[in-house]
Amino acid sequence: MKTPFQTVALIGKYNSAELGEPLLRLASFLKQRNLEVLLAQQTAERIGSVPYEAVSMTEIGARADLAVVMGGDGTMLNVARELIEFNVPLVGVNQGRLGFLTDVSIEHMLETIDEILAGEYAPEERFLLQTAVRRQGQIISEAYAFNDVVVSKGMSGRLIELEVFIDGQFVYSQRSDGLVVATPTGSTAYALSAGGPILHPTLEAMALVPICPHTLSNRPIAINSHSVVEILVLHAVDASVHFDGQSHMDLQQNDWVVARRSENNVRLLHPLGHSYYDTLRQKLRWGEKL
Amino acid sequence: MKTPFQTVALIGKYNSAELGEPLLRLASFLKQRNLEVLLAQQTAERIGSVPYEAVSMTEIGARADLAVVMGGDGTMLNVARELIEFNVPLVGVNQGRLGFLTDVSIEHMLETIDEILAGEYAPEERFLLQTAVRRQGQIISEAYAFNDVVVSKGMSGRLIELEVFIDGQFVYSQRSDGLVVATPTGSTAYALSAGGPILHPTLEAMALVPICPHTLSNRPIAINSHSVVEILVLHAVDASVHFDGQSHMDLQQNDWVVARRSENNVRLLHPLGHSYYDTLRQKLRWGEKL
Amino acid sequence: MKTPFQTVALIGKYNSAELGEPLLRLASFLKQRNLEVLLAQQTAERIGSVPYEAVSMTEIGARADLAVVMGGDGTMLNVARELIEFNVPLVGVNQGRLGFLTDVSIEHMLETIDEILAGEYAPEERFLLQTAVRRQGQIISEAYAFNDVVVSKGMSGRLIELEVFIDGQFVYSQRSDGLVVATPTGSTAYALSAGGPILHPTLEAMALVPICPHTLSNRPIAINSHSVVEILVLHAVDASVHFDGQSHMDLQQNDWVVARRSENNVRLLHPLGHSYYDTLRQKLRWGEKL
Amino acid sequence: MKTPFQTVALIGKYNSAELGEPLLRLASFLKQRNLEVLLAQQTAERIGSVPYEAVSMTEIGARADLAVVMGGDGTMLNVARELIEFNVPLVGVNQGRLGFLTDVSIEHMLETIDEILAGEYAPEERFLLQTAVRRQGQIISEAYAFNDVVVSKGMSGRLIELEVFIDGQFVYSQRSDGLVVATPTGSTAYALSAGGPILHPTLEAMALVPICPHTLSNRPIAINSHSVVEILVLHAVDASVHFDGQSHMDLQQNDWVVARRSENNVRLLHPLGHSYYDTLRQKLRWGEKL
Repeated sequence: MKTPFQTVALIGKYNSAELGEPLLRLASFLKQRNLEVLLAQQTAERIGSVPYEAVSMTEIGARADLAVVMGGDGTMLNVARELIEFNVPLVGVNQGRLGFLTDVSIEHMLETIDEILAGEYAPEERFLLQTAVRRQGQIISEAYAFNDVVVSKGMSGRLIELEVFIDGQFVYSQRSDGLVVATPTGSTAYALSAGGPILHPTLEAMALVPICPHTLSNRPIAINSHSVVEILVLHAVDASVHFDGQSHMDLQQNDWVVARRSENNVRLLHPLGHSYYDTLRQKLRWGEKL
Repeated sequence: MKTPFQTVALIGKYNSAELGEPLLRLASFLKQRNLEVLLAQQTAERIGSVPYEAVSMTEIGARADLAVVMGGDGTMLNVARELIEFNVPLVGVNQGRLGFLTDVSIEHMLETIDEILAGEYAPEERFLLQTAVRRQGQIISEAYAFNDVVVSKGMSGRLIELEVFIDGQFVYSQRSDGLVVATPTGSTAYALSAGGPILHPTLEAMALVPICPHTLSNRPIAINSHSVVEILVLHAVDASVHFDGQSHMDLQQNDWVVARRSENNVRLLHPLGHSYYDTLRQKLRWGEKL
Repeated sequence: MKTPFQTVALIGKYNSAELGEPLLRLASFLKQRNLEVLLAQQTAERIGSVPYEAVSMTEIGARADLAVVMGGDGTMLNVARELIEFNVPLVGVNQGRLGFLTDVSIEHMLETIDEILAGEYAPEERFLLQTAVRRQGQIISEAYAFNDVVVSKGMSGRLIELEVFIDGQFVYSQRSDGLVVATPTGSTAYALSAGGPILHPTLEAMALVPICPHTLSNRPIAINSHSVVEILVLHAVDASVHFDGQSHMDLQQNDWVVARRSENNVRLLHPLGHSYYDTLRQKLRWGEKL
Repeated sequence: MKTPFQTVALIGKYNSAELGEPLLRLASFLKQRNLEVLLAQQTAERIGSVPYEAVSMTEIGARADLAVVMGGDGTMLNVARELIEFNVPLVGVNQGRLGFLTDVSIEHMLETIDEILAGEYAPEERFLLQTAVRRQGQIISEAYAFNDVVVSKGMSGRLIELEVFIDGQFVYSQRSDGLVVATPTGSTAYALSAGGPILHPTLEAMALVPICPHTLSNRPIAINSHSVVEILVLHAVDASVHFDGQSHMDLQQNDWVVARRSENNVRLLHPLGHSYYDTLRQKLRWGEKL
């Protein structure tokens, strides 16, 4: 088969048994087309003994021309962070309700993947946030986030006090439950619940969304994605920083959280006819055509 | 001196050294008027050896005709909870910017207290929330809150899932960062940051204010203060319940938090001419008369 | 038949032809129970020649023991305003999706009315707003509103400037698109779109909700229903005041709009088992029990 | 004097008498530097007989190397629309509180203009919206907007029904008081009062902000500035479209309002050291550095 995607990696939702069958169905389908199939190590372990090569995410990054991610948007967030430094295009297959990132349904999976192999797809570039935590002048931790980096209070219920700088310029101090820095991808996730705006995926922008700010005139702001956001934890009893709501670390007073655009983009391949606005409308139950 | 307030208790902000001087000035002023002066035990210990009787909060509740609270609104919240089961009227003296509950300035303290002793004051009744946490059919904890009872997520950053019932009727399920149940007094505190409405102190109402709810159509609702609110923690990794943001306890899955109106009211004595709307306007920087 | 409701008035949605059949079906049902049936004049004219007495709304007010309103919530708003000075209980029959005020479905109409005649119903009292417009010291117009009184800008798109007083006390000045004064009944209507809180129908409260206020710290406030709200139109190119969004009049600079609680209540009769929270949840698509 | 700005136009706030003195002071200052000074016709008429050439805005567009606009942000909006098709850089001098667009104070006007003439300034490019109204297939009106294009209801108080399309894709239908399409420049104006996000001036984005939408899950969205927004007026009693709140025209049912990015940019020259975030913080009273 003539396709630029000669080596295809399959990555399933973490610890999900019911994905074994569709994953194997897809693998077999790809094999029949004489494509090389790689299974993510963790996925392979979950499924059990199968006639496909099980490899690490790093090896997927190095060898795959395409990665099919099966699960929900949460799984895609995870995979995107792991593969951001490689340039593997991603397709998302969803077992349940379609997501923003996983928009191929399991029922139509084979036809859609077939079309994508034939070059019929709508590609989309999305950026991640590259985050560093700086303590006493040292970077003590680094992480990627696809949706959002969130500095927030913890169990104590006490407000945190932050100072925010953008490109070295002081922006504001804030007493609040926390602050969300969201990519356009993350603008429809937690940032939206906190009152943030939706940012179209093509925007080179990040949203800063305060969580329950003490100053009522505080408002979400969308800034240039090429800006560097620095957040100084001025005062906090038990603050922490969260990456895509999937991992977090404790912060101390005077820690800095620095977020900037990733150098690489994630490349998502959507089925043709994919409409971001359709997804928005369905997810948010906005008004249909009258 | 003829006043219904023959025994006056003085209660200072916890651990605040600079209040010693004004407290003693006020005590001496009251003594000169032949009134009995009680000092809260903790306040007395902070000030050191003084010629006034130092007593527990319970004894203040039993003996005082009036309690003067010196500190900020946070101190008043604390005292109000401790004295709610007695019927001691409270006056709040503020060392800094006037608060909603502490609206006598330290500069004009003596004149204002003099007027209050002479019966020149504007009384106001406010209710508290009486809260119980029920686990497996047993009440495992009880507490009062003057501002708010807040069920919220903790350090993990994971949403919590709640079901809310009012007077035994199912109201809604909710995935969110938490839920605030606020009195009118608390409606200008945390609930306001979370997007809740301001409730005038005379309203027999409580506000239920979701924090970053996943369902965007979720909205704050003000219900009758005589209703009983029951919150079932359906799912939570590390939820907790907070009382006035001053104390909290951990919650487990299937715990119930039950909040209802206190039977007693707190009686606040304001200086004559006190205007709730003036305070609102100053605190929230609303528009002045044009 | 033994029922306190010997004379029942039927009132249909204005100018709605399709309600003729169910109205006559209901009238015939009542006649069979030897009850006196009155038809609202306007409804009778729409239906054509029928063997029931056609009377004015005033006569319905004077003679009816019960009025069945057929239509949507908009029809009920209209009828409630017209009958507020009488004490006729109202039942709302809805042809389509059930409303907050019209919660008997046309399909189950006969059974439900039967139960109500037998005294099986949940009564509820609701108040209206009584509004006066004062110009140069003279009251130039008076009106009732069941949902809301809205002062708003017109076609010009220019902000209006208002000053708001409650019980004679200055509250705030405001530059905005307008201001909503809503009853609990109206709190789920326009006020909600403008960001106002939901007020439970049992609350003796009104909500003041600014529309697109220029000052970002402006927030909705719920005040005591026994308060008098006075709104001074300080500056406006083309302001107007709206009553339930169903009628309006132009305002001039220095006009006052004065809103207070109606002396009478509207008495709504709900079917047994009616739950306000169920209606809320369905209308607002809040989370169902999990 | 060696400056690229050999011909400088001065444009004052419409109909403002008190600007005569500072305008003449500035003109004389420029003359002394041997620069050619043009006065906007309307400004010249207001000031009276002066020794400077009075010319139309079109002539300013054709001849000026720099235009100094004296007034507030409203004046700048007006001038920017009129000069958008030329490439005249603009400097804004403000008589009162500094604005977002007019950030040179009258007191320091001469020093700052001097610096700008010497090439010491921070240039900034901003785009406008180019709008067309289409009725029955014909474009019946065209206009520019610097802040926003607003489709809104009128005096009747009746909701309008819209359908919104972006780049030919259906986005949503909406029942609301209206819809704001804002540039980053306009994001701190009316759109902010309606609950929209702040968009940094460097963003190639427009915000769509619904005004009091009937569907509570409706949220502001920021889209790519290179997208074309088409708004179909499905139903409206008295809708109109507003440009910067300074002019408007009536809309009829089935009219289309089409907004797209202007081809040209406005070039604003700010004093060195100008910080957008400082202005935001002052205007919105956000927290200062602690």
